[in-house]
Amino acid sequence: MTKYVYMFSEGNASMRNLLGGKGANLAEMAGMGLPVPKGFTVTTEACNRYYSDGQHIAPAIESEIFESLALLEEATGKSFGDPARPLLLSVRSGARASMPGMMDTVLNLGLNDVVAEGMTKLTDNRRFVLDSYRRFIMMFADVVMNIPRLHFEEAFDRVKVKAGVHSDLELTVEDLEEIVSEFKTIYKYQQGEPFPQDVRHQLILAVEAVFRSWNTERAVYYREMNNIPSHWGTAVNVQEMVYGNMGETSGTGVAFSRNPATGVNELYGEYLMNAQGEDVVAGVRTPLTIDCLEEQMPDVYRQFVDIAEQLERHYGDMQDLEFTIENGKLFILQTRIGKRTATAALQIAVDMVAEGMISREEALLSIDPRQLDALLHPAFAPEALAKGKRIAKGLPASPGAAYGQIAFTAEQAARAKEENRRVILVREETSPEDIQGMHASEGILTSRGGMTSHAAVVARGMGKCCISGCSDVLINERTQTMTIGDKIYGPDDYISLDGATGIVYEGQIETRDAEVSGNFQVIMEWADEISDMKVRANADTPHDAQVARDLGAVGIGLTRTEHMFFETNRVFQFRQMIVARDEETRRRALAKILPMQQSDFYGLFRVMDGLPVIIRLLDPPLHEFLPTTEVEMRTLAEELGITFEWLRGVITELHEFNPMLGHRGCRLAVSYPEIAQMQTEAIIRAALQAADDGIVVIPEIMVPLISEVKELTFLNKVIRETADRLIAESGHVLKYMVGTMIEIPRACLTADDVAQEAQFFSFGTNDLTQMTYGLSRDDAGKILDAYYKAGIFEEDPTAHLDRVGVGKLMRIAVDLGRKANPELEVGICGEHGGDPSSIEYCQILGLDYVSCSPFRVPIARLAAAQAALRYPRR
Amino acid sequence: MTKYVYMFSEGNASMRNLLGGKGANLAEMAGMGLPVPKGFTVTTEACNRYYSDGQHIAPAIESEIFESLALLEEATGKSFGDPARPLLLSVRSGARASMPGMMDTVLNLGLNDVVAEGMTKLTDNRRFVLDSYRRFIMMFADVVMNIPRLHFEEAFDRVKVKAGVHSDLELTVEDLEEIVSEFKTIYKYQQGEPFPQDVRHQLILAVEAVFRSWNTERAVYYREMNNIPSHWGTAVNVQEMVYGNMGETSGTGVAFSRNPATGVNELYGEYLMNAQGEDVVAGVRTPLTIDCLEEQMPDVYRQFVDIAEQLERHYGDMQDLEFTIENGKLFILQTRIGKRTATAALQIAVDMVAEGMISREEALLSIDPRQLDALLHPAFAPEALAKGKRIAKGLPASPGAAYGQIAFTAEQAARAKEENRRVILVREETSPEDIQGMHASEGILTSRGGMTSHAAVVARGMGKCCISGCSDVLINERTQTMTIGDKIYGPDDYISLDGATGIVYEGQIETRDAEVSGNFQVIMEWADEISDMKVRANADTPHDAQVARDLGAVGIGLTRTEHMFFETNRVFQFRQMIVARDEETRRRALAKILPMQQSDFYGLFRVMDGLPVIIRLLDPPLHEFLPTTEVEMRTLAEELGITFEWLRGVITELHEFNPMLGHRGCRLAVSYPEIAQMQTEAIIRAALQAADDGIVVIPEIMVPLISEVKELTFLNKVIRETADRLIAESGHVLKYMVGTMIEIPRACLTADDVAQEAQFFSFGTNDLTQMTYGLSRDDAGKILDAYYKAGIFEEDPTAHLDRVGVGKLMRIAVDLGRKANPELEVGICGEHGGDPSSIEYCQILGLDYVSCSPFRVPIARLAAAQAALRYPRR
Repeated sequence: MTKYVYMFSEGNASMRNLLGGKGANLAEMAGMGLPVPKGFTVTTEACNRYYSDGQHIAPAIESEIFESLALLEEATGKSFGDPARPLLLSVRSGARASMPGMMDTVLNLGLNDVVAEGMTKLTDNRRFVLDSYRRFIMMFADVVMNIPRLHFEEAFDRVKVKAGVHSDLELTVEDLEEIVSEFKTIYKYQQGEPFPQDVRHQLILAVEAVFRSWNTERAVYYREMNNIPSHWGTAVNVQEMVYGNMGETSGTGVAFSRNPATGVNELYGEYLMNAQGEDVVAGVRTPLTIDCLEEQMPDVYRQFVDIAEQLERHYGDMQDLEFTIENGKLFILQTRIGKRTATAALQIAVDMVAEGMISREEALLSIDPRQLDALLHPAFAPEALAKGKRIAKGLPASPGAAYGQIAFTAEQAARAKEENRRVILVREETSPEDIQGMHASEGILTSRGGMTSHAAVVARGMGKCCISGCSDVLINERTQTMTIGDKIYGPDDYISLDGATGIVYEGQIETRDAEVSGNFQVIMEWADEISDMKVRANADTPHDAQVARDLGAVGIGLTRTEHMFFETNRVFQFRQMIVARDEETRRRALAKILPMQQSDFYGLFRVMDGLPVIIRLLDPPLHEFLPTTEVEMRTLAEELGITFEWLRGVITELHEFNPMLGHRGCRLAVSYPEIAQMQTEAIIRAALQAADDGIVVIPEIMVPLISEVKELTFLNKVIRETADRLIAESGHVLKYMVGTMIEIPRACLTADDVAQEAQFFSFGTNDLTQMTYGLSRDDAGKILDAYYKAGIFEEDPTAHLDRVGVGKLMRIAVDLGRKANPELEVGICGEHGGDPSSIEYCQILGLDYVSCSPFRVPIARLAAAQAALRYPRR
Repeated sequence: MTKYVYMFSEGNASMRNLLGGKGANLAEMAGMGLPVPKGFTVTTEACNRYYSDGQHIAPAIESEIFESLALLEEATGKSFGDPARPLLLSVRSGARASMPGMMDTVLNLGLNDVVAEGMTKLTDNRRFVLDSYRRFIMMFADVVMNIPRLHFEEAFDRVKVKAGVHSDLELTVEDLEEIVSEFKTIYKYQQGEPFPQDVRHQLILAVEAVFRSWNTERAVYYREMNNIPSHWGTAVNVQEMVYGNMGETSGTGVAFSRNPATGVNELYGEYLMNAQGEDVVAGVRTPLTIDCLEEQMPDVYRQFVDIAEQLERHYGDMQDLEFTIENGKLFILQTRIGKRTATAALQIAVDMVAEGMISREEALLSIDPRQLDALLHPAFAPEALAKGKRIAKGLPASPGAAYGQIAFTAEQAARAKEENRRVILVREETSPEDIQGMHASEGILTSRGGMTSHAAVVARGMGKCCISGCSDVLINERTQTMTIGDKIYGPDDYISLDGATGIVYEGQIETRDAEVSGNFQVIMEWADEISDMKVRANADTPHDAQVARDLGAVGIGLTRTEHMFFETNRVFQFRQMIVARDEETRRRALAKILPMQQSDFYGLFRVMDGLPVIIRLLDPPLHEFLPTTEVEMRTLAEELGITFEWLRGVITELHEFNPMLGHRGCRLAVSYPEIAQMQTEAIIRAALQAADDGIVVIPEIMVPLISEVKELTFLNKVIRETADRLIAESGHVLKYMVGTMIEIPRACLTADDVAQEAQFFSFGTNDLTQMTYGLSRDDAGKILDAYYKAGIFEEDPTAHLDRVGVGKLMRIAVDLGRKANPELEVGICGEHGGDPSSIEYCQILGLDYVSCSPFRVPIARLAAAQAALRYPRR
């Protein structure tokens, strides 16, 4: 038979799934002999049973609760509802993961008129009893019955005004009598029945309220945002009350065992005397910092410091504690791993290793890799942010913070840069043509597209702040306006973007620069020592490559050559190539691009001296390089010296119904082998030139979008003939590799064949995910909204590597590929290469490296180390 | 060591891959003791070796050839190049599959001036020798040296004119001397060296020429068209000459053991006396029908009839024979399975079973299922076709033949129908809006789109002739013209389409109707007895369903409900639903469509009484139901009573970058569950209504485009709640099923989960193939051209189920699905459901049924039987 209730003495920290975080830790502390008020936990399984029974607490559970209550009465020598020796309870929710939005706490449960009388006699402290009773009525009404708190707060204030006092401590016993009486009246009026005097009924109602709060809108929303499955459920902790409001030697507080902002090893917290829990956070009175306790109650302080240290050592991490002092006696009400800033996380990790408290491995596992982002990008100064006016919210597509005037086109942005003005590029969505404008901007805001849209991907690559898919924003490029709600913004207006949260602010909010500490380097070195996988970067320019190398990348996993074609002086030649009707003209245009590409590659090789560089052949469909409006077409036709009709003909011919499944990737190279030849020539010539200058370079030429091995066979020949000829002519010895992206399901399914023609595989999980799901990221917006609402998805399915679907294809590809070609180098260069959960799966798959945008390299290095620790290969 | 040459006595029919079809059959006949001239075969492996050696015959092969030649000399008692007892040879190519486009034959090889003299002495027949020599020079010059035949033919004609004769038989010895001398001069002039007198050199050159001919442009083209791998190679057959040109008791001919046009069991062929092989087909003289031989040479005739019967019995099929009579002695030069019309194929199969010659199983395997198409569709009368003028060629998208005037829009076609005019609908491509116009037309011609474009798929469904992707045709809808080359056609002009070949003809070519014989029914019944898989049909209307049922479909595998929405009176309501901004308005519009859908389904159920009917929920993206041009938008906005801006807003919102990967399929139903509710209601109400009328119906509701099981969980609930409520209200007992299309890679990869929510799977391999390849069929045209040229694809990769890629996903889906849900019904309803090769793979996968367009049902029934015979499940 399932056991639904556990005494603290029956549990421990490992039973988190069953008892919730709070309950498990209370049990653990009780086991350690720490001063924890006695109590028991109703399990998460009871919560699930409550829902599967149609929101009803089964008799079996109810009787288990009362059996445990009886044990509690025995242990405390008190009796629930007994005025002679009353037992009061605190009832608190506690899920596996800490979860705001759920019912938190009901204190002083078990009070009623009779018990209150009894307690007064017992304590001879009528004031304390009334204070407890008024708190209980309000909390019960609020969190159990959903009666708005406001009614009680107003009544409370009325009495304070009438009494002419400011602090609740100044209220007399008579004032409190009036408040309690008033509160009961409000309760009866709002609820239609008197405040319940049956204490056992109070308890069951409170337990049920905790269960119900698991599914409030706020809780559900929080779970969706944080990827917490709804089947986890919440536990309920029922504990003997201890009283911080018994008088001047009582109090309550919260504290961290180390400073959560800086990581410095010092107790950090605050407390209030003569108060109960919620007073500290509610700001009724101003709390004192924890240091003051050392003076006020030195013994209690010393005891608390000892307990904090003991718990830190016990859990091997910084603790976040709640405590209460009852008549000079200390009780610990909660302990948990403390949240902290990125800076603090690093400091604490490094310190604790130095203190011999944890191992390097444990230190690495204690840091959330996603936090590192904050260290690498500018952020808003908190004081400036507090004054900011939020005007819209989109997707947090690329971290960092920025402000500037609005630029509606890439050209405007470029012009502003020349004038030394800071601008935010605001567009419906960006395209490769906007690259220069994106470079010139402080940040990018788009009204369409998701976390993996063009804007998002490119911005992350540039380390620039970006908010995408901000559908609150209506953009009119023609009138140069952006409308949010009923307010219209123009090119002179300033806005500020917080790329970490997706929030758009009005006006200028000052930012402060990123700063990387020595701890950062230490942690990164530890990570690299432990990782099985290398971390490379996706970089298209020497500048990006340098950033990546500085942040610890040990190679380039993806150079997108098409970005090079969009530069103003080159796109003209490239367009000439596209509109050419014969190979001869195409080759002439390509010949002009060759030296430029060669110098691009040379620049990359110089920065990456000694490291491998993967260069991908031209990937996007050709129509992306041509204009779409008639005006632009007419201009371009004139520039190119062809008729408008000719150009329009070319553009019509290039039109595609589903460009994502169209004429791009290696399909371009098959149609126009001269492009692949030119690019190979540029790569090899650059490598030879670099070799002349003493630079060691290992170019890896990557063919995109393979779906059939014969494509690769064909292009391998084209590439190798060109490369081998140039190398032979040069007299140099140059090693180079030819490999392929694995980004089409069929490439995975036939990876054994493909691997015979490839020296390396690089998973392109952006496209692979879209094709495996049959879902285009550019069109997913509206679909996903409906899916969240229907509870089908809890987050964007492309956010992390989908292990059950896409992951299965990758598993097939790795297994078939390695079997057919044991020398095969396998990596990933899609967006997932910088995502910790995805990196973990790459470790499981046995990949050789991950490649991500330069600013995510540190995250990837840490995530790779954590993955190696969690899923060791040896 | 590889053996490259086999004497006929060393071979047999099973060695086809090594010896080629011709060589294997010659060896087989030799083994049977039939009068076959002695000889040997140089293997296909020798051909491959020739190519891998850089087009060079290795000394090892050359010496094996001469060793075999020595054996042949010994066996014949003749000597190659020896004027005293000259051995002459015939050299003929012979691949595994009969392959036009390759070098065929060189006769009389081994002749030179000296040998000619010797033969004259030996035979005392100077005329015969000279006739043989002139033939040899010309054939050798033509097929071995590529000297245009024309030069020789002109010289031959000049001598005939000079001699004043018409037939070559009338030429005198002197005339022939002159011809031989002339031929040698032409040879020397053209080739720059004298006609080779070294007979061994002649032989090696001829063998090499056969090998070379494997890779001529024509041969490569034929292989591509017929899916013959280039690594098969060709064999070379070297045989002692027998002479049909020795005089009036000699001759040569070809004959079929049964009539290849009708299948009647009678010898069918023709022959020429005093002639060599090529004369029969070349039309130099008019051949006699084979019956005449009975009078002319009754013994030879009887012997030939006996041999034909013997061979037919031996091979169990109708034979196509070549023979030569030398001085009254019969020789068989070749036998092979004879090609035949569809009518003949059925007749022969049924007859041979009746004759006890073959089993029913063998009979079924003897018929090419694709041939059945010809029986089900009208065809051009051959005599009319012979006079037709070909003006363009596209893809043979849907079989049949038709003529009519040109209609450029669906409306024109509909109007013409009302006026009782026959029209061909000519469009760049068709869309669902054209359905009615397609119905009204005799045939459809499109300038874009492939074999699986909208036009192709719908036309096949309708059993209407269609040519798609005919890029020779330039269509201008505005000016109502169609341009081919420099000729312009308008609405008054007639064109004719042959859907079986893809050829467009000018003017009207008379057609003759399809006729289905009793043999057809017999074969179909045999097929059904043997098949493991059922054959259902894809049908959207009662008419299509009736056609399908008449052709033997035992259920509907796919009803596309969207076609119902396109009908003029409904599309208005449907558009109102689309432009609605709130659920309430959408529901109102849907409520008006409900009774219409219900009556559609009722109609289907009535026709399919007693059989299962799968109905798919709405699938296409909503923008397909809205216009694209401003003019149409303005009209529609007015009709709908909304502003133009509103409508344009809706259309802009619905725009998608990749509609194929966008908001369609079950994603619509998730966004608008009210659509799924309405459709479910229509289906269940129709089924209940049918039940009232005593009709037995098993509706299977199919959810399209599942990529994640939770989609199905969500929609299952929507569907079942609606259905169960209606059924409960009705008081009837009604069984229905809910299942899903499997058409997204992820659905295959997670089929174990999906199968827990589905009662049936139906593979949608059109979309599955596109997503697995990452290739959109609408955009594939230009890409495929380049791929054929590069030798990467030999045919459209979507034509047949791709077993190594898509097939692997299907295998995963079937295995996971059946394991998770052993009751799961699994079928296929994509285009591949009517393709024999794909049906074979479905048998291998263990599918329960295939579903195809009505007119392909017979093909599928036969293909399913063949598949069951080739890959038995038990």
